[in-house]
Amino acid sequence: MRILKIGGALITDKSDGAFEVARLDVIESISRQLDGEVILVHGVGSFGHPHVKMYGLSREGVAKTHHACLKLNSIVCESLIRAGKHPLPVHPLEFFSSPDFDFLRSAVEEGFIPVMHGDIVYEAGRFRVMSGDEVVRILAEKLRPEAVGFASDTAVVVDGEVVELVHSGNVDSVLEATSPASGKADVTGGMRGKLEEALRIARICDVYIFSGYEKDAIRRFLSGEHVGTKVAKVF
Amino acid sequence: MRILKIGGALITDKSDGAFEVARLDVIESISRQLDGEVILVHGVGSFGHPHVKMYGLSREGVAKTHHACLKLNSIVCESLIRAGKHPLPVHPLEFFSSPDFDFLRSAVEEGFIPVMHGDIVYEAGRFRVMSGDEVVRILAEKLRPEAVGFASDTAVVVDGEVVELVHSGNVDSVLEATSPASGKADVTGGMRGKLEEALRIARICDVYIFSGYEKDAIRRFLSGEHVGTKVAKVF
Repeated sequence: MRILKIGGALITDKSDGAFEVARLDVIESISRQLDGEVILVHGVGSFGHPHVKMYGLSREGVAKTHHACLKLNSIVCESLIRAGKHPLPVHPLEFFSSPDFDFLRSAVEEGFIPVMHGDIVYEAGRFRVMSGDEVVRILAEKLRPEAVGFASDTAVVVDGEVVELVHSGNVDSVLEATSPASGKADVTGGMRGKLEEALRIARICDVYIFSGYEKDAIRRFLSGEHVGTKVAKVF
Repeated sequence: MRILKIGGALITDKSDGAFEVARLDVIESISRQLDGEVILVHGVGSFGHPHVKMYGLSREGVAKTHHACLKLNSIVCESLIRAGKHPLPVHPLEFFSSPDFDFLRSAVEEGFIPVMHGDIVYEAGRFRVMSGDEVVRILAEKLRPEAVGFASDTAVVVDGEVVELVHSGNVDSVLEATSPASGKADVTGGMRGKLEEALRIARICDVYIFSGYEKDAIRRFLSGEHVGTKVAKVF
């Protein structure tokens, strides 16, 4: 089993002022590439964030944010159905109130694609935001997948070149080069955070960070090929 | 806390050939009336049934049926948000994989309206249909509400008159009169089944069966007024 995260920036328009704008062409391209034993986790981009920003975690904010996350999730699942796949939406707000990881495993074994997402969750008597990345990390810890993929807008790039492999020998220099402090913030964006997340997950399995726009990259990741940057499992 | 079931025939067009047709005006009228501590359970009418009929409980059938149930649920929640309420969709397929009734209770106490529905559920290694009525019965058993209401297309009617109260003294004659064998099948429809369901729940609390089309009936039910037919709690 593999876990694939598709970024909110990849599947929604997150530009300033964008509100609940899905990138249907990207979602359809991804849907066609999804095969095999996989759990899909998507970000919520301009569906989730504007509501949290406007209403915070008030009752109104929780209801509106969760509802918007479900709308994007429904768009993704609809696209998967059109592509002949069998999605099974699983919403963190419900799932993590009493998590059943065996249910997820059974669903995958029966040929479904569980589709999770960033969401609001209720924990210890209060609501908080759970990002898609956090969902991925928890799933990885519990389900021990073969590999985790982050389909983002780019692989890890240093000095204009894709870093093919991050391993113990070069991890410090790559982290340094993707750090905002290195003055490269304009090109690396949130890559430092993504890389740190990948390093945490690399204690469990190989992690790939790659461009979801690249032709067939998702299909190749799911087939076990090398795509983008591989963060090698730490032995 | 009260539990309100709204029938699939009330909120969708279930006529022959109707496919995923929501009755938005009815849903909006219901949304405006919903207040106080309540869990809403809706039928899925022409969103759920056609898919099950066409694909059975194959992978395709499960994915398409569940997706369609969620679409109707999203329409109901959207309408509640427009009416200024705070819905929290809760899907049986996920919820019953590892049910957490305290989560539902907390949500109600925090001012949310959990919105559940008929669905496919995964139980003991296989998929089956769970009707909205069954969801209501399980919730009633676990949460012990003050009252349960079934907003249907009619109250219990015998000889053209609404039966105001069903109690130990008249239950047998009312059941007889609503039985298909009495030759009244054309006017009573599925009322016999509804009444039997209500009698099971009456071991826990009062149950009301009433017309969801009647002006303010839902608001009155939620305020503790008598609406339609009361099936008195069995002491």
